[in-house]
Parts: sequence; structure tokens; C-alpha cells
Amino acid sequence: MELKDKTDIFKIVSQVVPEKQLIQKSEISEDYGHDEMGTIFHLPDLVVKAQSTEDVSAVMKIANEYKIPAVVRGAGTGLVGGSIAIKGGILIDLSGMNQIKELDADNLTLTVEPGVLLMDIKEYAEKKGFFYPPDPGEKSATIGGNISTNAGGMRAIKYGVTRDYVRALTVVAPSGDIMHLGGKVVKNSSGFDLKDLVIGSEGTLGIVTEATLKLIMKPEYTVSLLVPFENFESAISTVPVILRSGITPTAVEFFENDSVNFWEEFSGKVFPEANHQTYLLLSFDGQSTERVEEDYEKIAELCFENGAEDVYVLDDEIQRNQVWTARGAFLEAIKSSTTEMDEVDVVVPRSKIVEFITFTHKTAQEQNIRIPGFGHVGDGNLHFYICRDDYDDATWKEKLNNVFELLYTEGKKVGGQVSGEHGIGLAKREYLGQSLDDSVISMMRSVKSAVDPHNILNPDKVI
Amino acid sequence: MELKDKTDIFKIVSQVVPEKQLIQKSEISEDYGHDEMGTIFHLPDLVVKAQSTEDVSAVMKIANEYKIPAVVRGAGTGLVGGSIAIKGGILIDLSGMNQIKELDADNLTLTVEPGVLLMDIKEYAEKKGFFYPPDPGEKSATIGGNISTNAGGMRAIKYGVTRDYVRALTVVAPSGDIMHLGGKVVKNSSGFDLKDLVIGSEGTLGIVTEATLKLIMKPEYTVSLLVPFENFESAISTVPVILRSGITPTAVEFFENDSVNFWEEFSGKVFPEANHQTYLLLSFDGQSTERVEEDYEKIAELCFENGAEDVYVLDDEIQRNQVWTARGAFLEAIKSSTTEMDEVDVVVPRSKIVEFITFTHKTAQEQNIRIPGFGHVGDGNLHFYICRDDYDDATWKEKLNNVFELLYTEGKKVGGQVSGEHGIGLAKREYLGQSLDDSVISMMRSVKSAVDPHNILNPDKVI
Repeated sequence: MELKDKTDIFKIVSQVVPEKQLIQKSEISEDYGHDEMGTIFHLPDLVVKAQSTEDVSAVMKIANEYKIPAVVRGAGTGLVGGSIAIKGGILIDLSGMNQIKELDADNLTLTVEPGVLLMDIKEYAEKKGFFYPPDPGEKSATIGGNISTNAGGMRAIKYGVTRDYVRALTVVAPSGDIMHLGGKVVKNSSGFDLKDLVIGSEGTLGIVTEATLKLIMKPEYTVSLLVPFENFESAISTVPVILRSGITPTAVEFFENDSVNFWEEFSGKVFPEANHQTYLLLSFDGQSTERVEEDYEKIAELCFENGAEDVYVLDDEIQRNQVWTARGAFLEAIKSSTTEMDEVDVVVPRSKIVEFITFTHKTAQEQNIRIPGFGHVGDGNLHFYICRDDYDDATWKEKLNNVFELLYTEGKKVGGQVSGEHGIGLAKREYLGQSLDDSVISMMRSVKSAVDPHNILNPDKVI
Repeated sequence: MELKDKTDIFKIVSQVVPEKQLIQKSEISEDYGHDEMGTIFHLPDLVVKAQSTEDVSAVMKIANEYKIPAVVRGAGTGLVGGSIAIKGGILIDLSGMNQIKELDADNLTLTVEPGVLLMDIKEYAEKKGFFYPPDPGEKSATIGGNISTNAGGMRAIKYGVTRDYVRALTVVAPSGDIMHLGGKVVKNSSGFDLKDLVIGSEGTLGIVTEATLKLIMKPEYTVSLLVPFENFESAISTVPVILRSGITPTAVEFFENDSVNFWEEFSGKVFPEANHQTYLLLSFDGQSTERVEEDYEKIAELCFENGAEDVYVLDDEIQRNQVWTARGAFLEAIKSSTTEMDEVDVVVPRSKIVEFITFTHKTAQEQNIRIPGFGHVGDGNLHFYICRDDYDDATWKEKLNNVFELLYTEGKKVGGQVSGEHGIGLAKREYLGQSLDDSVISMMRSVKSAVDPHNILNPDKVI
């Protein structure tokens, strides 16, 4: 059966999901049409506020039967248009599935619905003495969104990324079938790793409706170091020295004074020690004060030996929060410094960071456009923001395309990848295609066709 | 074109790979027909001793065109028949691709060919001050084999499994296409995770011809504790207490006195402190002697509080090697204690280990068959060996099937998975099918068909 018009979608879906969970086209808020970046806009024909795995399964069965595009959305904090219903159809809003279902202290797992916010997981676990290590900057993202992009964040260097903390998933396939992948087990060599295939697939291969996460015990003690350097070359060349010391910091962040200035202007606050060119911001955590102190003292020495201008120990919580809050707000601060922006979330081998940053600075000069940035230099994941400022539409588009082309080409040249943690969505699809072997893209397409033969689940994203 | 007979395979392949790298049917050694377990036997029609990615690609193009089954083999140390050419055809022997290609000290990576042995990687890295943490028992396995089963081993509890140490792969697809997956990058959210799909797929989705592994810095100091308990219940109930202490041991192994006895008989040596019922064997490592000592002393105390009969500190290397060598030889020792055996490599939630071991003991009694075992109790991965002893063919088959049915059913019941680290191969295929949702098996089949439409690469394995 073919659908006659958009109103039919409502009729058919209302047979399996109560009407009060549905929002029809005319009543859909603009918010459902864009994500945090805001550069892509399209409204769905119907929003389904799902309450259960069964809701999602029932809706996907209909979508599959009638070949209606379906897209999943959490908190809408994405940056690449991954959750936008660019072909209309059904938007499945999972933000209402926000229950924490079980903390299993023997198996060190936390089972949650996909709409639970990252900050709520963090708080819930820590209150009970446990710790969920992944730490993406956007704490109001849902865990479902984190899983769909394999979100990384600040602590990847010591603890890994979201993928490393997903033990099990309940996934609704494009057909509506419900699949249980993984389990509360620490090892698994039982068939193809569909769990990791779904993680990072940005809602194109399946819909995560429940996740069992790995927890660790909460570190008792945390300290950060703010380490200014005269220039970015000396800051970044210190990173491999730190990593070979045998001490693994929780985080190694890098930023320059322009980001600090944007933040001061944006927040109206004063950044501590804001009179330097370049900074590394390091964190250390552990179960014992003495060990953490011993560790950061050794690293502080290494920093001095490698040209640090100073080492500020942020050992009281207020000061530490101040600096990390600033770090977490750099994106917003840069956004507020310009009329419009877009971003590059490239990840490069750690040995190539200096080369890539140098190239970005040169590109900004040559293209006469601002490209402020900062990055997780402990893991080679850099964020650069191309700022429109006062350029007219045509010039902006041209310059943005030029910069994207140049930076992604350079990223590929140095052995990097298009996205370290924000995903591909719609915005970076073209550059993913240029970055990977044709054979790889073609294999991804084959897998997508096999999993979603009618191409209804988040169509035209990623590949 | 259809192949007329088996000799044609030789003719066609010899057009793309030099004859000296080919072994024809009549000259193929029996060794190519079985793996370490030895319960499944079949010879291929042709062995290709591949020397390069290009060799593998050329052979797969032919296999794909003429629809000839192709199976990959490394050192043949598998336990589930994964590398047996059960349909004849071409066996691609990668053991000759055994070069270590690059150690990158800035990016902390080691790039190797798939035929390099685990023990050679270990030795090479450690000589240079680095460390490859995964530690499967079989050190003479190839890294390609480790990747194909996502091998786990002793150190998974602290360091993770093989999957966690693979940064990049060069993979030849069933079509012969060469794919580069991942890179020397620490994070990656760039398209579907084909790298993890290939890892653990037991040579059914692609052939790994190069791998870039993550290294860490070598821990300076290692200590083991041998901790006897009166019974397995008190030994194993101590494990979650240890894991919640905030100290993560490198390894937490469990075994009973029967394994010790088999080993003493097998090796002709004497196990230290062999007068106890049940043991935990723990390891601790780190960069500082003081910290490691502090850690193991705290854990030793916890063990005493939870019923340990004693705690033997194995702090000199000779003693430690003696115990770990014994632990590493338990499989062989059990094998030599009987006429034939088969194994269960189940992984269960850590909270269900006691329940599962109790069930296994009960099953052994009820079925009147020996099922000695041991396990990585830090991660819930248990190895049980069903011993034929003097049963005749028919009785053995019946009892073996009964035990498999009973143990895998129980494994599923307690939330476990069929294989923790040895894979599914041919031997466990039926039980994987019973263990997973139909929707999951069906999705695995769809993925297999998409990647290998002619079903030529290691056909009929896993699913």
C-alpha cells in the first residue's frame, strides 16, 4: 500500500501508539527541525514521543511496510545534522524514555533508557560511589545520542570513548525486529559484533532503546594542571613526552588565548592566568591523594623541561570547575563571537597535531577567515570553527567549502579521519566519501542495504 | 566459468601467485586439515602461502569469480574448527606474512603482518620498553588469529581484549577489494565501524593482512598472589569485593586442585602449595614497586577477610613463572588426562559464576562424565573440558551433546554468551543459534550475504 498523503501517516501510526504521544505536522515545533549547530533545517511530518521499545518497534514496522523515512532524536545536541528528518516522515523522539533502570553493583553495570542525559548518568553513578568515565563536553546530550556518534570527550586518553563502556544494547532494527546485543559480560566472541556496528552508526542501522553501560569505581581524588606555553609547537610537542612517562593523565586539552578571550567576552568572567599564548590543561585522578600528587608533580617537571612558562595546580574544586567550565563553553563562546559558523572535528595521529594546526593557521590567513579552535590533544581530536563574521552569503559558502576541502584533504594526508567524535551526519558526508577508500564506502553501503533494504532509517546520512 | 575439476584451481591461482607458494592437494600435509582441538578434519584442495596483501587480494578475486571456498589459517591454534577448509577449496596460509613493520613511539602503535606470533609481538615491544597488554594463553597463536576471534586472555580485567588494541586494519574483502579501516588515531566516529565488524568475525567477513596495534608503556613491576580457599564459593564470592576495592588487578584466575593434579602428572613437576582445594591467582602491575606492593597488600587483606586460607606472594620471577606456566598448561594437561575432549568457553556475568560452576559440577555427576575446568573469573569467562575417557563412540557423542545442551542452556539462562574468547567456528555454531535472538542471527546472516554474496569466505562458520 502506498500512502496517499501526509495525514495518512498520523492515522496509521495512531493505530499502534496512543494519539497523545503523537504530534502532527501543523503542531510540530521548529525545534524539531534543527540540531545544536543549526545549519540544516527540515521538519518531519509526524513526531512520535516513544515511551518503550515496543512503541519504537511498532512504529518501525509501519515505517518499513509503508516505506516512510524515520529518524531518531534525543536532546538534539548534535552538530552535523544527524537527527534532522531531511526527507520528512516520522521523527521518533526518545527523550521521554529517560529512566535509569538498574545499577548492578556486582557486575559494575548501569542499565538505562536512551533518553537519559549524560549529566544524570554521571550524577546518579557518582552518588553511589561509581563512575561513568566518558566525558563529552555536552552534558545535556542523551546517552542514546552519545552511543549513536560514539561520543568521545575529555577523558578518552585514559578511559576510552563511549564504545568502550557499552556492554549491551537493545536495538530496534529498521524492520521493527527487536535485537538484544551483548550482555552483562566482560568478554564476548559470540558471532559478528553487531553491537559495535550499531554504535557510531548515527541512527542509520538501528534504534537503541536500552543500554547497559560499564561503570568503574569513582576515583577519590582529582587534580588539574593549567600549563601555559609560549607557543603551540612547544605545548603540543610535550604531549608524547607525557604519554611515554608511564603516567596517563585523565585529560590533555589544548587551547590558545583567542578561545580564552571569546569565553571572557561571552561569559563576562575572568579566566585565571589569562595572559599567555597557549595552554595545556591536564587532569589526573586516582584512589589516593598521594599517588595523584606524585603523578602530577612528575608531569609538571616534564612540562617545565619542555618549555612550560608555568604550572598552575588547580587543586581546589572551585578553581578547577571554573577552568573546566570555561573549557566546556569554548564552542558556545566562539559561536557567539560570529554570525554563523561550521566546524571541523578531525582526528589525526598524535604525531601530526602540530603539522595540522600549522596548516589550519595558514589556511585561515590565506582564505582571510577566522578559524579559532581547540582540541583534545591527548588523543589527536581537534575542533576548528570556521567563522562567517561579516561575509555575504555567496562568499561565506565559497570560503567555507574551500576551508573544508583544504582541511579534510590535509587531515587525510596526515593519516587522520574526518570525525573524531561528532559524527558525519549530513554535513560531513561528502568529506567522508573523499576520505575513505571507495571499497570501504561501498562496503558500508552494502551493509546499510542489508540492514535497511528500503533505506527508511535515517536515510542519506553518513554515506 | 565453472571450474571443471580440482586441478583447475591450481592452474588459475598459479597465474597470479608464484607456483612455489602453492601446495597442491596430493602434497598437502595433514596438519592443514585440523586445528589444536583436532575434532574436525578436512583438507583443502590448494594451499596458498601468501606473502602480501596483493597475493591475498589476487587469490580472493579468483575465488570470488569462480565461487571457490577460501579459508584463512595462521598458526592453527584454534579450538572450534574456524580455520578448517570444511568445503575444500583454497586455504590461504598467512603464517609466512610475519614481519613486524613499524613501531611508532610517538603514536604508541605497532604495525604488524597477520602471521606474527603473539609471543614475538610481546618480546619485541617489551625489549623497547613498550607493552602489548592482551594475554591469551596460547602464545604461539598469530596476531591475525587473535584478531579473528577477538582473543581475550588473562589480563582482560585490567587491560581489555584484542579488540581494544586494534587501531587499524588492512582487510581484503571477499571480492578481493583492499580496505583500510581505522588509522593511527585514538578516536574515530567516521562512518560504520567495519573494523570492529571484521574483528571477531573468524575470517568470514574479510582477511586481515596488516594490523596497527595500540601499545602502552611497559609496567616496571609485576607481582602475583596465589590465594587458596577452602571451596570455590568463597573464592569466587571474593572477586566482586576485590573489584569494588578501587584496585584493579591485572588478572584474577580461578582453578581447582584437579587441574593442579593433571598438570603435575602431565609436567612431572611439583606445583607450589598444592595442598588446597581451590585457588585464586591474582596479578598486579604498575610503574612503581611501592604502589604495586600497597595494592596487593590491601587485596591480600580483603582475601583473608573473605575466607582465604593463606596468601602466597609470588614476588620473585622464577616462582611466578612456575605458577603461570602451570596455569598456561592446564588445557594441555587436561587434554593429556583423557582420550579425547571438547570444551565450553562460556562467559557469564560475574555475579553468576558460582551458579554456573555449581551447575557444571552437578551436570558432571548426573551425566557421569568428567568436566574439569578453570576460568578467568575476573571477567566471567570459564573454560570447561568434557573428557571422553573410556566411553565408546556412541556414548561419548550422546554425553557430549547432552553436556553441551545443558551447559549452554544454563549459560543463556544466567545471561551469558556462548564464547568469551575462543570463538564459534564450526563447533559452536548450533549453540550460538540457540543462544541469540532469531532477529540477531538473521541480521548476522544479512550482513554476511551483503559482504560475501557468493558465500565463499570461510563458508558455514559462525552462523
